Amino acid sequence: MRENKIRSIWNAGGAVVNGWLAIPSSFSAEVMAHQGWDSLTVDLQHGVTDYASAVAMFTAISTTTTVPIARVPWLDPGIIMKVLDAGAYGVICPMVNSKEDAEKFVHACRYAPQGGRSFGPIRALLYGGADYPAKANETIVTLAMIETRQALNNLDEILSVKGLDAVYIGPADLSLSLGCTPTFDDVDKPVAEAIDMVLAKANEHGVVPCIHNGTPEFALKRIARGFRLVTIGSDARLMAAGAQQIMLNMKSGLKAVSSKSAY
Amino acid sequence: MRENKIRSIWNAGGAVVNGWLAIPSSFSAEVMAHQGWDSLTVDLQHGVTDYASAVAMFTAISTTTTVPIARVPWLDPGIIMKVLDAGAYGVICPMVNSKEDAEKFVHACRYAPQGGRSFGPIRALLYGGADYPAKANETIVTLAMIETRQALNNLDEILSVKGLDAVYIGPADLSLSLGCTPTFDDVDKPVAEAIDMVLAKANEHGVVPCIHNGTPEFALKRIARGFRLVTIGSDARLMAAGAQQIMLNMKSGLKAVSSKSAY
Amino acid sequence: MRENKIRSIWNAGGAVVNGWLAIPSSFSAEVMAHQGWDSLTVDLQHGVTDYASAVAMFTAISTTTTVPIARVPWLDPGIIMKVLDAGAYGVICPMVNSKEDAEKFVHACRYAPQGGRSFGPIRALLYGGADYPAKANETIVTLAMIETRQALNNLDEILSVKGLDAVYIGPADLSLSLGCTPTFDDVDKPVAEAIDMVLAKANEHGVVPCIHNGTPEFALKRIARGFRLVTIGSDARLMAAGAQQIMLNMKSGLKAVSSKSAY
Amino acid sequence: MRENKIRSIWNAGGAVVNGWLAIPSSFSAEVMAHQGWDSLTVDLQHGVTDYASAVAMFTAISTTTTVPIARVPWLDPGIIMKVLDAGAYGVICPMVNSKEDAEKFVHACRYAPQGGRSFGPIRALLYGGADYPAKANETIVTLAMIETRQALNNLDEILSVKGLDAVYIGPADLSLSLGCTPTFDDVDKPVAEAIDMVLAKANEHGVVPCIHNGTPEFALKRIARGFRLVTIGSDARLMAAGAQQIMLNMKSGLKAVSSKSAY
Amino acid sequence: MRENKIRSIWNAGGAVVNGWLAIPSSFSAEVMAHQGWDSLTVDLQHGVTDYASAVAMFTAISTTTTVPIARVPWLDPGIIMKVLDAGAYGVICPMVNSKEDAEKFVHACRYAPQGGRSFGPIRALLYGGADYPAKANETIVTLAMIETRQALNNLDEILSVKGLDAVYIGPADLSLSLGCTPTFDDVDKPVAEAIDMVLAKANEHGVVPCIHNGTPEFALKRIARGFRLVTIGSDARLMAAGAQQIMLNMKSGLKAVSSKSAY
Amino acid sequence: MRENKIRSIWNAGGAVVNGWLAIPSSFSAEVMAHQGWDSLTVDLQHGVTDYASAVAMFTAISTTTTVPIARVPWLDPGIIMKVLDAGAYGVICPMVNSKEDAEKFVHACRYAPQGGRSFGPIRALLYGGADYPAKANETIVTLAMIETRQALNNLDEILSVKGLDAVYIGPADLSLSLGCTPTFDDVDKPVAEAIDMVLAKANEHGVVPCIHNGTPEFALKRIARGFRLVTIGSDARLMAAGAQQIMLNMKSGLKAVSSKSAY
Repeated sequence: MRENKIRSIWNAGGAVVNGWLAIPSSFSAEVMAHQGWDSLTVDLQHGVTDYASAVAMFTAISTTTTVPIARVPWLDPGIIMKVLDAGAYGVICPMVNSKEDAEKFVHACRYAPQGGRSFGPIRALLYGGADYPAKANETIVTLAMIETRQALNNLDEILSVKGLDAVYIGPADLSLSLGCTPTFDDVDKPVAEAIDMVLAKANEHGVVPCIHNGTPEFALKRIARGFRLVTIGSDARLMAAGAQQIMLNMKSGLKAVSSKSAY
Repeated sequence: MRENKIRSIWNAGGAVVNGWLAIPSSFSAEVMAHQGWDSLTVDLQHGVTDYASAVAMFTAISTTTTVPIARVPWLDPGIIMKVLDAGAYGVICPMVNSKEDAEKFVHACRYAPQGGRSFGPIRALLYGGADYPAKANETIVTLAMIETRQALNNLDEILSVKGLDAVYIGPADLSLSLGCTPTFDDVDKPVAEAIDMVLAKANEHGVVPCIHNGTPEFALKRIARGFRLVTIGSDARLMAAGAQQIMLNMKSGLKAVSSKSAY
Repeated sequence: MRENKIRSIWNAGGAVVNGWLAIPSSFSAEVMAHQGWDSLTVDLQHGVTDYASAVAMFTAISTTTTVPIARVPWLDPGIIMKVLDAGAYGVICPMVNSKEDAEKFVHACRYAPQGGRSFGPIRALLYGGADYPAKANETIVTLAMIETRQALNNLDEILSVKGLDAVYIGPADLSLSLGCTPTFDDVDKPVAEAIDMVLAKANEHGVVPCIHNGTPEFALKRIARGFRLVTIGSDARLMAAGAQQIMLNMKSGLKAVSSKSAY
Repeated sequence: MRENKIRSIWNAGGAVVNGWLAIPSSFSAEVMAHQGWDSLTVDLQHGVTDYASAVAMFTAISTTTTVPIARVPWLDPGIIMKVLDAGAYGVICPMVNSKEDAEKFVHACRYAPQGGRSFGPIRALLYGGADYPAKANETIVTLAMIETRQALNNLDEILSVKGLDAVYIGPADLSLSLGCTPTFDDVDKPVAEAIDMVLAKANEHGVVPCIHNGTPEFALKRIARGFRLVTIGSDARLMAAGAQQIMLNMKSGLKAVSSKSAY
Repeated sequence: MRENKIRSIWNAGGAVVNGWLAIPSSFSAEVMAHQGWDSLTVDLQHGVTDYASAVAMFTAISTTTTVPIARVPWLDPGIIMKVLDAGAYGVICPMVNSKEDAEKFVHACRYAPQGGRSFGPIRALLYGGADYPAKANETIVTLAMIETRQALNNLDEILSVKGLDAVYIGPADLSLSLGCTPTFDDVDKPVAEAIDMVLAKANEHGVVPCIHNGTPEFALKRIARGFRLVTIGSDARLMAAGAQQIMLNMKSGLKAVSSKSAY
Repeated sequence: MRENKIRSIWNAGGAVVNGWLAIPSSFSAEVMAHQGWDSLTVDLQHGVTDYASAVAMFTAISTTTTVPIARVPWLDPGIIMKVLDAGAYGVICPMVNSKEDAEKFVHACRYAPQGGRSFGPIRALLYGGADYPAKANETIVTLAMIETRQALNNLDEILSVKGLDAVYIGPADLSLSLGCTPTFDDVDKPVAEAIDMVLAKANEHGVVPCIHNGTPEFALKRIARGFRLVTIGSDARLMAAGAQQIMLNMKSGLKAVSSKSAY
């Protein structure tokens, strides 16, 4: 089976640099996949994507060595299994708030006897290879989002669930849940403390700590603190930020031109 | 009929800042349309778009005051009329190399008696308003691409064609045609001279000079020289450039981290 | 944040005239959005639409001042949050049969602390504006469908749920559930009585009563009785009814022609 | 090969009632196909459709006995052959202005030796049956649009082209070309005279006269005068007209309600 | 209402030959529908299809007399009702493991009073006919997948659920669940015994036994043993198998050619 | 630039085994691309594909080492350049009947100075690599279809056009044009003789002879005679043939069963 570079990087003690895809287009996904990300996550939750566009985007990512991940819209076995069958090598599940949530999530990602994933890896066989059925359980990575006060309260139990590879912190939702302003990087103090706690506990339980970031600067700081998968930016944000910069340059440039031409 | 802001800016002596769309997605088009461009061009020639995605993208642009333009794949009346019916307020036509080309192009963009555009402005009526049939001829802008040696040779004739509002220089193709390396900004000397000639002649004939650029710096220089519509960047390039910058930052940051951790 | 005209009309004591979209096409949605409806509902339950077509249709509606609503296929937080992120300003949820259903529904529609909606309003930010995160909870309207005997039995509890703005009666399903023939307007007596009861109780609880209708005549009667949002027709029904009328005219006309030509 | 009901009706001396599809949706096409039209035309010229949506719409029409026709965007052999391969039983070609145009059109629609249509009836075989290759030439109907002064001038030559089954008058474009206001029914006098001339000459040459109408009343009048295929309305117009009627009823009804409640 | 040929075949004591669709294309579905299958199942679980492609595929199947079935991704009332509204005449539901599962499944498929299906058969009315609302309950077939040890343990209870027409064995998942290698035909002994047990118990309860097969040989054997609906192959497998055979022939042929040319 | 395996095989004296794609689906294309074909042709002429599906299919093929080719619908520079920009490494152009046709075709496929292809290899850069602009002219292969009597008459002139790499015989259309029955393999004598002539003349001019076949047996025979690229089957035909075989087996098997059960 094709290796999962995420596991390889983790096994080598490194950190995964993950990109984010919200635009439902195989072309923009392919452009992103050529920029050197270790992995790219198709966001079926808050992105403007659904199953059909996700398949097209996984296919585009598969033209490179970047690893395809999916964030599913909700803890729903139907869509979790569909993105796995479509070739996702990792699944990020939002709102995992309890041991039961974590178990249900893992159960949907693993074939028996480790779980109850239904058999039919239609595109995954093409992507992973003929031994996918035998090796999928040890290859696919499962990432549970920790993003509510409830999840913090149940953290030890969640981290104890067998087959859960990683926890993925959503700082924006975690902020909201703790009564703070939603943001990715410069979070309020209670959120920062919660992030530290999740990091520490994840390491205790041998679960990989992962986190969403707004900038490379923060992502690097968080890697330095021990995070092992960091997401930065998204296709749509990068595009918007680039356009804003151009418009700023053009407006100030045009002002300069027009003030000059006033003389 | 809804005004064509391109004409208004031109009439006020200003320059239009135009963005470029190559990703076939209404969502990325809508994101771009919220960044303040005067106009956005859906590129049906070299972009990964076709008629169906163009309609979705025009619709997305129509949620803002940015003006929708189409670059058609070729001088073909069928697709020119279809993008106009879909609500494009400007058409950029590639490879207009002769008077006949320019006449054929204008003929496809104007209703009788000025041209031979077939009647049926299905979405244009929604976008432009009920008086679209009466005012389309004076509202829609026509931009002929000058991008070959042949076009340079026929320039005066092309510029004399009634109903042609603007010429649009494609520096990359013009470079190729003149035996130079294809680029947008720092063009070889023969290309630079040709650009100057087109600018001068367009002004002589009262045709608006427009040009494709790689950076805002060059776009501003060209506005200063007299160009009245400048294109900068594209959705896909902005996204790729942003991602490359992140990866650069991450790689040098991770190197710093790992060399530090070596001690 | 862009105002929600539904709330404005309600606050002014008026009734909202709502149209219905079952055809998965941004073009037909845009045509409908130009006809003057206060709001248009993209029906993801019984319409032939899904998330991807709904986004395209919301975009089309956003070219006008008509308010976009979604009816979701089921009480599922995943799709409820996705349509909100895509810019729906109202959500109609089918089969809200108990207090728990109503609470789950409201929870999915409101950010903390009022609910548990996950943060990521990707297109909603474009549509609503930069202050969407702060004002979404007070702007978005929630409409729970009352359409079963069970819901009637639990009505007081349902109407007591904080954050539930409105109840929306589905006369066809309510008829079925009460053992009557499914229809919108001339409902059987038990259904008529149930509708009156819902109307009365909703008013008692300060919850806005809304209802689905087959004809403008009935919609007007129901407004006169106190309903504050009325749906009439659907894109597909209007089209079919228009075509049937043409075929009737043509057949009787052709019969007249052919009987005349018999002489 | 499945019969072409258009030919059967013509052979029986009758007139074909044709509907028009501009919405790119297989569902709306299927709804229309269940209303009893003899034929339905997918409009790839002024409709919001392209090849991909046309195939889906032909498929939807094929669930009924209504005959699928395509209006192509332009006199281009590529798309003419593609809609035929996709199962269209008739092709309406816009802007046939000369004998050469008519010959090129027919050539694209007929296999050798009558024409030069390329062989590969991929979906047409499914729709028409295994003997499609042998019988397509005699089954498919070709309709050339007469809609310019130039076409009127060349009418006899156009009507003499072998293999041209019918002429189809576009009153809106013909009006424009003759310097009149574009409309379907109550055309200006020069247009009315031109229509009469086309009708008379078509009958002389044994070519079937067809025409686009706005209302069943006019369609019936034109059948009475001798037209043998009449188009009325379109999916989008029917939907919009129905919605406008509802909004009229609602607005006057609401005014009545509110003036009553003023007392 | 259009008859359900599956019921007719069952009533006549016959066995249904069912094909399987995993490719999300109305064209490939239409090709398959012309090959004589009694029914075709659009697989929304492990196929690369979703609701939107399923509707297109049902439409394509509806051009023939083959019966359209859907396998839904999960026991979720939202999607079950959507495929029924879209015209599916049968629903295969995966992972029905308990009486509660079976009851929930049947409840979603039947209108009151037999169940709680919401009313709005938008495309089903076109496909089934005007009396669809009255006759859907007795026409639609419900097939619950038996594919886990848990389901075997609860088999009598599952089979006792009123309104469950058939059980459908998934030998691959059943194998996994029993600790055996996933396959369709030559299953391990514990799986074979389980299949026999399901067959026997289904017959006892008057529930129709159905099963997924890899080859016609096995399908025939299973019919001979008493199965009444057999699935063989899938569009994608047939295509891949045909291509593999060609490549085998070509490679051995080319080897022969090149060894010959070596002399 | 990524090598073009077609050229490599030709340079090594081998023959290319080419598959054919008519189903507009990236998934079926990806399945086909995993079966070992040297190249796969997306058929935009007689296949049910257009530009948008072709891009998706090229992307799917790009996950393997199979070379993507496009057959364009017609000799139209717009679509030829679009498929090249989308990453096609070869273009098959139908109905090349004269020297002018061949020159126009090559002109559209080559950048200046060898041709007039417009610059903008948007996806081709991702697929081919950063040096695509410099090396595309020598890498892309051009294949002109010889399929009419006219082409046979102009064969020497066509074969003399510089930049034309190969001729591709369409036996079905060639048969039609020569007054014979359209078929791929067992062609009538005049067609067989024409094929031999094309083969001989192509070899004389150093142009690579290629041909469409129905079966591997014929493809092998034709390779033995000197053809250097052979197409066999198509996705849709393979699927249909496989399904027909199953239905044959099932029907005869069921007959056997039922006759046995008669005793």
